[in-house]
Amino acid sequence: MSRDPRYDILFEPVKIGPVTTKNRFYQVPHCNGMGYRDATALATMRAIKAEGGWGVVCTEQVEIHPTGDIAPFIELRIWDDQDLPMLARIAEAVKVKGALAGLQLAHNSMNAPNLYSREIPLGPMDLPVYSYFSDPVQVRGMDKQDIRDFRKWHRDAALRAKRAGFDLIYVYAGKLFGLPMYFLSRRFNQRSDEYGGSLENRARFLKELIEDTKDAVGDSCAVPCRISVDEMVGEEGIHAAEAQDIIGHLAELPDLWDLTLSGWENDSQTSRFAEEGYQLPFIKGIKPLTSKPIVSVGRYTSPDLMVKLVRDGVIDLIGAARPSIADPFLPQKIAQGRIEDIRECIGCNMCVAGDFTMTPSRCTQNPSFGDEWRRGWHPEVIRPVETSARVLVVGAGPAGLEAAMMLGRRGAEVALAEQGEPGGRVMREARLPGLSAWKRVADYRLGQIQAAPGITLYRDSALTAEDILGFGFAHVAIATGSAWRKDGVGRRLLRPAPLGDADVLSPDELMAGQRPRHRNVVIYDDDHYYMGGVLAELLVREGFGVSVVTPAAEVSTWMRMTMEQLFVQHRLVNLGVRIVSHHHLVGADGSRVTYACGFTGRETVVDDCSLVTVTARLPHNGLARALAARRQDWAAAGLGSVTLIGDALAPGTIAAAVWAGRRYAEEFDPEQGPVAATMRREVTGLAQGPFYWDAATAAAK
Amino acid sequence: MSRDPRYDILFEPVKIGPVTTKNRFYQVPHCNGMGYRDATALATMRAIKAEGGWGVVCTEQVEIHPTGDIAPFIELRIWDDQDLPMLARIAEAVKVKGALAGLQLAHNSMNAPNLYSREIPLGPMDLPVYSYFSDPVQVRGMDKQDIRDFRKWHRDAALRAKRAGFDLIYVYAGKLFGLPMYFLSRRFNQRSDEYGGSLENRARFLKELIEDTKDAVGDSCAVPCRISVDEMVGEEGIHAAEAQDIIGHLAELPDLWDLTLSGWENDSQTSRFAEEGYQLPFIKGIKPLTSKPIVSVGRYTSPDLMVKLVRDGVIDLIGAARPSIADPFLPQKIAQGRIEDIRECIGCNMCVAGDFTMTPSRCTQNPSFGDEWRRGWHPEVIRPVETSARVLVVGAGPAGLEAAMMLGRRGAEVALAEQGEPGGRVMREARLPGLSAWKRVADYRLGQIQAAPGITLYRDSALTAEDILGFGFAHVAIATGSAWRKDGVGRRLLRPAPLGDADVLSPDELMAGQRPRHRNVVIYDDDHYYMGGVLAELLVREGFGVSVVTPAAEVSTWMRMTMEQLFVQHRLVNLGVRIVSHHHLVGADGSRVTYACGFTGRETVVDDCSLVTVTARLPHNGLARALAARRQDWAAAGLGSVTLIGDALAPGTIAAAVWAGRRYAEEFDPEQGPVAATMRREVTGLAQGPFYWDAATAAAK
Repeated sequence: MSRDPRYDILFEPVKIGPVTTKNRFYQVPHCNGMGYRDATALATMRAIKAEGGWGVVCTEQVEIHPTGDIAPFIELRIWDDQDLPMLARIAEAVKVKGALAGLQLAHNSMNAPNLYSREIPLGPMDLPVYSYFSDPVQVRGMDKQDIRDFRKWHRDAALRAKRAGFDLIYVYAGKLFGLPMYFLSRRFNQRSDEYGGSLENRARFLKELIEDTKDAVGDSCAVPCRISVDEMVGEEGIHAAEAQDIIGHLAELPDLWDLTLSGWENDSQTSRFAEEGYQLPFIKGIKPLTSKPIVSVGRYTSPDLMVKLVRDGVIDLIGAARPSIADPFLPQKIAQGRIEDIRECIGCNMCVAGDFTMTPSRCTQNPSFGDEWRRGWHPEVIRPVETSARVLVVGAGPAGLEAAMMLGRRGAEVALAEQGEPGGRVMREARLPGLSAWKRVADYRLGQIQAAPGITLYRDSALTAEDILGFGFAHVAIATGSAWRKDGVGRRLLRPAPLGDADVLSPDELMAGQRPRHRNVVIYDDDHYYMGGVLAELLVREGFGVSVVTPAAEVSTWMRMTMEQLFVQHRLVNLGVRIVSHHHLVGADGSRVTYACGFTGRETVVDDCSLVTVTARLPHNGLARALAARRQDWAAAGLGSVTLIGDALAPGTIAAAVWAGRRYAEEFDPEQGPVAATMRREVTGLAQGPFYWDAATAAAK
Repeated sequence: MSRDPRYDILFEPVKIGPVTTKNRFYQVPHCNGMGYRDATALATMRAIKAEGGWGVVCTEQVEIHPTGDIAPFIELRIWDDQDLPMLARIAEAVKVKGALAGLQLAHNSMNAPNLYSREIPLGPMDLPVYSYFSDPVQVRGMDKQDIRDFRKWHRDAALRAKRAGFDLIYVYAGKLFGLPMYFLSRRFNQRSDEYGGSLENRARFLKELIEDTKDAVGDSCAVPCRISVDEMVGEEGIHAAEAQDIIGHLAELPDLWDLTLSGWENDSQTSRFAEEGYQLPFIKGIKPLTSKPIVSVGRYTSPDLMVKLVRDGVIDLIGAARPSIADPFLPQKIAQGRIEDIRECIGCNMCVAGDFTMTPSRCTQNPSFGDEWRRGWHPEVIRPVETSARVLVVGAGPAGLEAAMMLGRRGAEVALAEQGEPGGRVMREARLPGLSAWKRVADYRLGQIQAAPGITLYRDSALTAEDILGFGFAHVAIATGSAWRKDGVGRRLLRPAPLGDADVLSPDELMAGQRPRHRNVVIYDDDHYYMGGVLAELLVREGFGVSVVTPAAEVSTWMRMTMEQLFVQHRLVNLGVRIVSHHHLVGADGSRVTYACGFTGRETVVDDCSLVTVTARLPHNGLARALAARRQDWAAAGLGSVTLIGDALAPGTIAAAVWAGRRYAEEFDPEQGPVAATMRREVTGLAQGPFYWDAATAAAK
């Protein structure tokens, strides 16, 4: 297939200072949970985006100095030459695949508690650090010497970045991560010297840094400036009108403007809380202020919208972080006229959770993300099977769909049997408030499967062990999902609660359309991800009186990892949901529900109340057990392996289920079924020389 | 000096299976926030403990397999041979210094969400992971094949540990970290096969692992078993009586019993919540059950108590984690009759916070901890100054005391001037409820300074710039501390709140003895470490009606890092303190205090109420500024450098202040004053070979 001429504009080259990107697809800096620890895994991940057609591929933030150390988060560092081999590997990997390589210099200022380096954090004023964990550390207001020192550190880092081979070297003033942003924002900068007060004064530091960087590396490297155009706190902070003044003031100084919202949770909102392109109202109006190209993100996956944004003169380059994670080959697919093959970001922020859990980011849509080098998985391509193979996949939920699709790509003959709705839990959950975009997980895979010659989807197929033994498949993957428990067992309660004849519903039953008998409902949430909060939203919007009772300190506490927790609690509280934290279920009987305080043991009894338990799930592994019980019949039936995958093995996230499906397909061997592969990793390179330090060496130091 | 014969018993050798420790000082496994990332820093830290006289020095937990991956926490791994050079370096470092090296094999089971490896966690039953962040991951109940696999992984890991050079190789069944503990505990193990039910069945898995390990490495290595003797949840979990049955059952199987409480927060309680030796009631009675030596911890720093515990037949070996961090030379000091030189652990769990923030642990008492290799700091020894030097240290708080003490050890002539109480904030805070042990920070240093010939402490000395210019010191370190703000400015409010003529008190004023005018008090806590909660405890015990209003989800939220948050909230709630989470201060006027909900903006007004603000501090840097203003007079006065250190530069923890004092002394140069040194670190060793993976390689894999 070939490119639709409508999209030609997306493939125009754009000059960015001294360099030129081959097209308008621009992977902005984004974190990934790998950083300095998993250097080659990270380099390979970036390289695959370059392979997929992105014109520019950037690193995440790269710390320039130990005074801006954002540990425990794992990003990159360019503190000194020790970091250069790692960074050079990333630049090389990206450039070999034909993209420009960008590096985002960063000093985290008030967001950096410096727990690794133990240095005093630096910022415009003496204030507590603005870090995620409210660490007991204060920032020191920078004096003139500090500013001079900082400028030197930044210049040195830019020179190192150039030596490492990067084409674009950022000055970062965005998202409450980059130090100059704290100078720009009047709420953090109440200085009385020439770096505080007027907009010109507050912008002085940023101006100096851009000038320094251009002076240092501008001969051959582009110098983009990433800046926040709204802090979403009203006039107390940077807001859209003021941002126009700032950008107007510095208009031609950087080679490119990269526009974001601030803080990060506002810039990277999930589909549950914000639509594609929700940043647009904040960035319209910037383009006329500068002749330099503008890039901005908006979770864009539609080429038509991309074209419109360029034609309308809103942005010049299509910025992407999450859509480039969900589909590293998005540009290539547009170029090849394969729009229907695009794997669209669902906006779930599972990738962000990688950064917050300091582990390689996962993607619900792209299970190869983070495992490109570690396991050798590619987002598009998988090696063919050596010999013919017939595989039955039971269950067309996220695990089964992915397994079938990728086995099909390997050239296996695949039967996919589903007794209910293809898509499984994804379809059920996508009907809950705010989660409709999650449907894309099923849509993409069902579309691919439909177009694949080797895969047959059998609907309305409830299979027994007997059925399967009769089919003659050599290998069976069982992806039959899981069911929510209704007995309260989860983390806090390890034995069933006494629930008598109370009206108890599970999330499954609510998703299937059942509703509580009483107008009051206690949702007992010991799961802590989205389900409890989403069901509260569902029921309160239907008019139920809803309390969420949880042993945690807050509702949906794990959603701190996806930057949604405060949004969830804000929405629920404003909808009238009562959040009862630090309490656990005691029991229920008739129309009464009883819960107790985790600190005092004091019990609360609610009358005329139904109970919804959101605690844990049990895998649907009955079919696998039935087949295991007939192990002696396998040989005669030609059956070689039976493998539980996804929630049917161990209930988890949709991302984990998709990943499990991919793993089955990747590790599948026509003779043996799945064969576990080992994962590559890198370990710390040990310092040379005598390494222990004792009294004698300390005295002689 | 020589050893007091009373303590001879502590220096008796003890046979542990095939190896013999030279004395009874036993550093049990403990985390440190360095782990696999900071291998040489970790090896050096352990080596220094061996140098300080510990007979046995153990690693932290070492993960045996990717299915027991406790990321984001950074411990050690022994997944395969790739990990051996790092582990061998630790073993060598410890053994070179004359101790036995122990390695704690661990599989974190239900505590391991496997976010790095992406494997399914394993445990006795299908249940959600029991991890710190309530990750959306479920454990899979192990079947018989899993148990066989696991035994092989454990045996292989033991063999690798032996090859790495370790003398003791642990089987870990403690603290909700080691997999066999989940089998032992009836609340997690409700299996109906031979691994569940009776105590013998629940102990079967542990028995097999000990047998396997002894079989694999027992010829030359000791095999200790670390086990939890009480989960502190009553009969629902392992409890003291049951633990005696378990240990009675396996009595002679391991070469040593290492007894702990469970979970970790119960085993490593702070001095605020538990006394030295609080574990004793749980471990008395174990010794008669076995002929094997017993080790257990209890934050022991008194050699007399240690002797008593051995003589009374409670334990054979003095286990220590935190006391060995606070003073790695504790055994040597007892051996040399230098009891007064022991730097006693204050039980603050700042070290634990290193693990929870995934950064090298700090110690309030031992500022060299974590910086032994990184900065070349030794807990006892510091290089002499090259030429004579006279230094004035202004302020005898934690920073000033440490700077003066260590400058004295370097042979400088030091004047230490204090206008108030020597010890500064440490003495003031040690009078708050539960914090009395913190006084040890001052006691140790004041004792050392008193005995040091080169240091003179001047009391009641409030110095002006004029005074200092008149003294003729070449170098001045200013450690004048900080003051709590009284305007509400912290993290949430960046501009002063309108407080009119309300009764507002700061923590400083409360510590100085002032009390609120009204019987009701709102403590506005935007600091989030201990101060807000401790003041609430102080005031409620004095009869005030106390509400803690905080923008966080809970009181003292950062104390999650020291494992105290739930203890704090439990205590406060049971004392009747009201916790108002997710609210921030609006203002106060007369006898009214107003605060608002962060989600709805809804305001609450409290009448007849005083306000205590616990938000941020301002450094006392006036003296430094006055000296800076007279820069032109320095040369004539012979003054070469003026340096702010500790809270006077940037307010932080006591640990940070002590560290800043040490840094000043370490980096002090008689000619130039302090000269910043760089910090060593190790970076990831890059994999060799072609490292990027693309469609072609994926297809050909």
